[in-house]
Amino acid sequence: MIIVMKPNASMEAINNVVSFVQSQGLDTHLSHGHEVTIIGVVGDKTVLADKNLEIKEGVDRIVAVTESYKLANKKFHPEPTVVKVGNANIGGNNLVIMSGPCAVESADQVLETAIAIKKAGAQILRGGAYKPRTSPYSFQGMEEDGLRLMKEAKDATGLPVVCEVTSLAAVEAAVKYVDMLQIGARNMQNFFLLKEVGKTGLPVLLKRGLSATIDEWLNAAEYILAEGNPNVVLCERGIRTFETATRNTLDLAAVPVIRQKSHLPIIVDPSHATGVRDYVKPLAFASVAAGADGLMIETHPCPEKALSDGPQSLTFAQFEELCDTLRPLSAMMGKPLL
Amino acid sequence: MIIVMKPNASMEAINNVVSFVQSQGLDTHLSHGHEVTIIGVVGDKTVLADKNLEIKEGVDRIVAVTESYKLANKKFHPEPTVVKVGNANIGGNNLVIMSGPCAVESADQVLETAIAIKKAGAQILRGGAYKPRTSPYSFQGMEEDGLRLMKEAKDATGLPVVCEVTSLAAVEAAVKYVDMLQIGARNMQNFFLLKEVGKTGLPVLLKRGLSATIDEWLNAAEYILAEGNPNVVLCERGIRTFETATRNTLDLAAVPVIRQKSHLPIIVDPSHATGVRDYVKPLAFASVAAGADGLMIETHPCPEKALSDGPQSLTFAQFEELCDTLRPLSAMMGKPLL
Amino acid sequence: MIIVMKPNASMEAINNVVSFVQSQGLDTHLSHGHEVTIIGVVGDKTVLADKNLEIKEGVDRIVAVTESYKLANKKFHPEPTVVKVGNANIGGNNLVIMSGPCAVESADQVLETAIAIKKAGAQILRGGAYKPRTSPYSFQGMEEDGLRLMKEAKDATGLPVVCEVTSLAAVEAAVKYVDMLQIGARNMQNFFLLKEVGKTGLPVLLKRGLSATIDEWLNAAEYILAEGNPNVVLCERGIRTFETATRNTLDLAAVPVIRQKSHLPIIVDPSHATGVRDYVKPLAFASVAAGADGLMIETHPCPEKALSDGPQSLTFAQFEELCDTLRPLSAMMGKPLL
Amino acid sequence: MIIVMKPNASMEAINNVVSFVQSQGLDTHLSHGHEVTIIGVVGDKTVLADKNLEIKEGVDRIVAVTESYKLANKKFHPEPTVVKVGNANIGGNNLVIMSGPCAVESADQVLETAIAIKKAGAQILRGGAYKPRTSPYSFQGMEEDGLRLMKEAKDATGLPVVCEVTSLAAVEAAVKYVDMLQIGARNMQNFFLLKEVGKTGLPVLLKRGLSATIDEWLNAAEYILAEGNPNVVLCERGIRTFETATRNTLDLAAVPVIRQKSHLPIIVDPSHATGVRDYVKPLAFASVAAGADGLMIETHPCPEKALSDGPQSLTFAQFEELCDTLRPLSAMMGKPLL
Repeated sequence: MIIVMKPNASMEAINNVVSFVQSQGLDTHLSHGHEVTIIGVVGDKTVLADKNLEIKEGVDRIVAVTESYKLANKKFHPEPTVVKVGNANIGGNNLVIMSGPCAVESADQVLETAIAIKKAGAQILRGGAYKPRTSPYSFQGMEEDGLRLMKEAKDATGLPVVCEVTSLAAVEAAVKYVDMLQIGARNMQNFFLLKEVGKTGLPVLLKRGLSATIDEWLNAAEYILAEGNPNVVLCERGIRTFETATRNTLDLAAVPVIRQKSHLPIIVDPSHATGVRDYVKPLAFASVAAGADGLMIETHPCPEKALSDGPQSLTFAQFEELCDTLRPLSAMMGKPLL
Repeated sequence: MIIVMKPNASMEAINNVVSFVQSQGLDTHLSHGHEVTIIGVVGDKTVLADKNLEIKEGVDRIVAVTESYKLANKKFHPEPTVVKVGNANIGGNNLVIMSGPCAVESADQVLETAIAIKKAGAQILRGGAYKPRTSPYSFQGMEEDGLRLMKEAKDATGLPVVCEVTSLAAVEAAVKYVDMLQIGARNMQNFFLLKEVGKTGLPVLLKRGLSATIDEWLNAAEYILAEGNPNVVLCERGIRTFETATRNTLDLAAVPVIRQKSHLPIIVDPSHATGVRDYVKPLAFASVAAGADGLMIETHPCPEKALSDGPQSLTFAQFEELCDTLRPLSAMMGKPLL
Repeated sequence: MIIVMKPNASMEAINNVVSFVQSQGLDTHLSHGHEVTIIGVVGDKTVLADKNLEIKEGVDRIVAVTESYKLANKKFHPEPTVVKVGNANIGGNNLVIMSGPCAVESADQVLETAIAIKKAGAQILRGGAYKPRTSPYSFQGMEEDGLRLMKEAKDATGLPVVCEVTSLAAVEAAVKYVDMLQIGARNMQNFFLLKEVGKTGLPVLLKRGLSATIDEWLNAAEYILAEGNPNVVLCERGIRTFETATRNTLDLAAVPVIRQKSHLPIIVDPSHATGVRDYVKPLAFASVAAGADGLMIETHPCPEKALSDGPQSLTFAQFEELCDTLRPLSAMMGKPLL
Repeated sequence: MIIVMKPNASMEAINNVVSFVQSQGLDTHLSHGHEVTIIGVVGDKTVLADKNLEIKEGVDRIVAVTESYKLANKKFHPEPTVVKVGNANIGGNNLVIMSGPCAVESADQVLETAIAIKKAGAQILRGGAYKPRTSPYSFQGMEEDGLRLMKEAKDATGLPVVCEVTSLAAVEAAVKYVDMLQIGARNMQNFFLLKEVGKTGLPVLLKRGLSATIDEWLNAAEYILAEGNPNVVLCERGIRTFETATRNTLDLAAVPVIRQKSHLPIIVDPSHATGVRDYVKPLAFASVAAGADGLMIETHPCPEKALSDGPQSLTFAQFEELCDTLRPLSAMMGKPLL
């Protein structure tokens, strides 16, 4: 941590800050420049976390030198993490595709989808039972009934399932049925929920918030890891910008940035990022070429009749074509699709 | 609702869309332009909510003409809503100031603050007992003990209190102690939580999400209103943009925009919007001049020792000076500070 | 400047960086932390400007401690600058209002406007002769004929005039007619043009770019000041964000931020910021309450017939009402409207 | 174009709008809904461009149905455009890579680079002679001397050259030396400059503005096309968002969106988008996989000594490795690297 003093800071103010920092058991290094003095702080800076150095007399600003997340940090955990969900190894040697409908609607829909996506090459079935919707008048999900249908589809096909949870009640229900819990973009900083999914020990798919920096995202992962649950998979799904041609702006640079900063696996969801079916395939390709560990792709037996996000869902035929054309690319990238 | 067809849409495709819309009990009006055909839809469009018209053959896009929120909409409820919290009437004839620490830390801190802000002119005491923090290693709040201290400060001073809730457990605890529940920016689209605070019937302070449009914000209010709870107060607290000179970008245009679209009261929080104590006063003035119904201002007996957000907190002397200088302005704007 | 080394940087790498910096005539201070080593650099850092320290072996990142703008910086020029335009003193003891049409359309339009706004209280006439328009098929301005009409209105009323310039040819024409040159938002980083307006010595109104940080804005001002022209007035006019309820998001925090970082005057343009006539008055009030030195307000004899930006223009009656109601507020803020 | 009336619009107001539109030679279709009336407008809407319908009595808002750009629009020009620059065909059957230094610094630097990138597989040499820099104290480019060095490198290697122009004077100089003119991100809405490069008839590389929507970008292209110059290549180079881990946020969805809306070729610049050398390769791969027609990659004989943007420049060895590993991917995408 570096404390930058104001140009006009008095020696007394500088000394006061230095004394305070040292009183907390930390060392300091002073550097008197022509314009300003800076104070380097050495030691365990967490003891300064709530000390408001910014408003001490003469202080201009504080510059963090090290990240606040530790367990998610590659510096302290250089080996890549592989998260096992059923037979799928996310972050391992294969590209893992999760697919399924935005919302669980019926037993037939889910089962039909599970069979079709498994045949095409997907390894995990997704499906929303608790749906966060902008308007209270939109379909809100089948809740526990939806979870049960997912479990039935799993039992029939062997595909592990991932479902979003939006409350403690949903977590308590989901652990009875699913293989992986999903935290949606709108709940990425629902810290209460992060702790709860951390406690379950189940693998967690953590979607990036619409306006979350990569740093905040890794801090959200830290909440889960800090509960003793190492099984976190990150999912880039687009951030909010001024551009309206797509629903969100897919930030594919997140893939190499996460690779550099963290050991956690990262997958990409081009369906939610764009909101437009025609853009899913080119961005799925781009994601794999950027080095993603997996993809989340929405599919529906009949997108026109989907109760949620139909416009971005692929038909089974489109999904199969996507998987088939992805095979050579994924192999070239060193992560063949099984 | 308007359905814009693609330039090359066939008559068959157009007729199919028209038939489908009519089969749902709605009327249509066709308008054949030189380049494209548009289909106006008349009737209760909620029946089309999950029908995915966007991906029907030949459809280019859907343009919404009316808002999805109804209860929050000024069109159907032209009279301004006044929300009563203790003796304070938010949205009424007076400027209402809420003040207090970011986080509840001790009985002394809260009581001392309550006495000081009441004397200066504040009508509601704020204080966080459940703190959403970016890092799991930051102070997370005193939880129910914090709520209890707020209640004690209320009993001693008569000031009603508002506290943030971040989970159902927090709601269940808070209803025993507080006069108003706050939904923080990070939970604005935690729809589960919105429903729960709606059910309590207590007044709710709904902060705008960091990347929420005004339209999404009013839809979030709609979740609360739809539970039969009309007591919603909106709070603009800055949105996330590329600018880093302030923590967030205060969007003061939200005040007149909300006035035009909704009947709900709106207050402004310049403390969280800027994150810098020196900017709080000019933006508090600007908020009142823009027509806000109230302000939320962070104060602390000793900002240097605050466990959360010290750098943006005012001392009691600064807060008193702010209230004193705001008096003539608030009177001029027709909402005198009591 | 602070050089943060990577956690695993070798002593050799650290020594190489230190030697390099010292070879440029600068001093260094080392601070070895538990995780990383940081190198403080003391002296005239401009000699390092193009030295790419970021990619030297072992370097993690560079943290700037001082701003790159000097002439615009309050640290080195603490006294507020007052820019004189005709009889108006921007940044002085009075609120200065500039008003007029988005685009100059005819002699009558401009003269009629000049008379009306002068009567209401404006001190400077604005009007665009060179119009930057998103589409090439929109009205592009009357060019030099427009400048001439502005000059005629000035001669008739005594009001100094400000006109936007968009090219060197426009600058060369404008200097013959106008009292102040405007650089529009889209040209804020047209550095060639900044230098040219700097050379003229005329007062310059520098609008903030749609996606410009305050730091970049002050660096743009620095381009003008570095040509020996001290007469720069900044104009906040909204930045681009995800919100679509207004054309741009007015960043009123820019007013106190600029006050703290620079000695240059700052005015606000609520007309372009919102694009909606109904929002102009509340945001004009907010701007004055935030401490702005002036306002730019669009007016038109008949907004419905304006060739550009009619929807945000006030009628003369609306403008007069605005000025009248602003008088007590501006007086209260210590900058009475003349 | 659709005119949405306010819920309370009177029949008289509706009739007035209809009469006005018809008086301009256009047809109307009325659609009376339960809440609002909408008026569809049929005919050449450009006659309404400056008529300010938004502020006519009773009008709520105007919804554009068709795009304002025509020449750049795929609807009216379905065949993809191929732009020939020297022997390179951008938008044709091969991936075209442009490479070279951010700034021209010396004859040796440019020639050495040209030889190295040609050998690796690049078809066009880039190099900046007029540099837009945030601070006036940064290196501003060699100007015409730089153009001359580019021409010499072209003569020696046969590689066509592209250089950015930032003013009319730069355009007038550049046409004597270069094969393609570049409009940088900061000048994307410098409409004066767009017209000037349009008039030259030379191929133009039009970079997307930092905060430009895709719609505005295509309108900027329209300015060039409207001058009779069909040779426009678009270049996605990142947009400005809140994320700071990369310099900008590369919006790769722009590739399929442009493919759907326009016939113009599109290339991607991952160097400027990220500002970090380590991220260039994964995003170059992603760009090609998303379907880009080409890439712009910065290279420098010695990035540590580059006068501009060294941290994002590749060494020749890194560039060669990039081209080699891109070959199988580009072939797979149907656009082999020559």
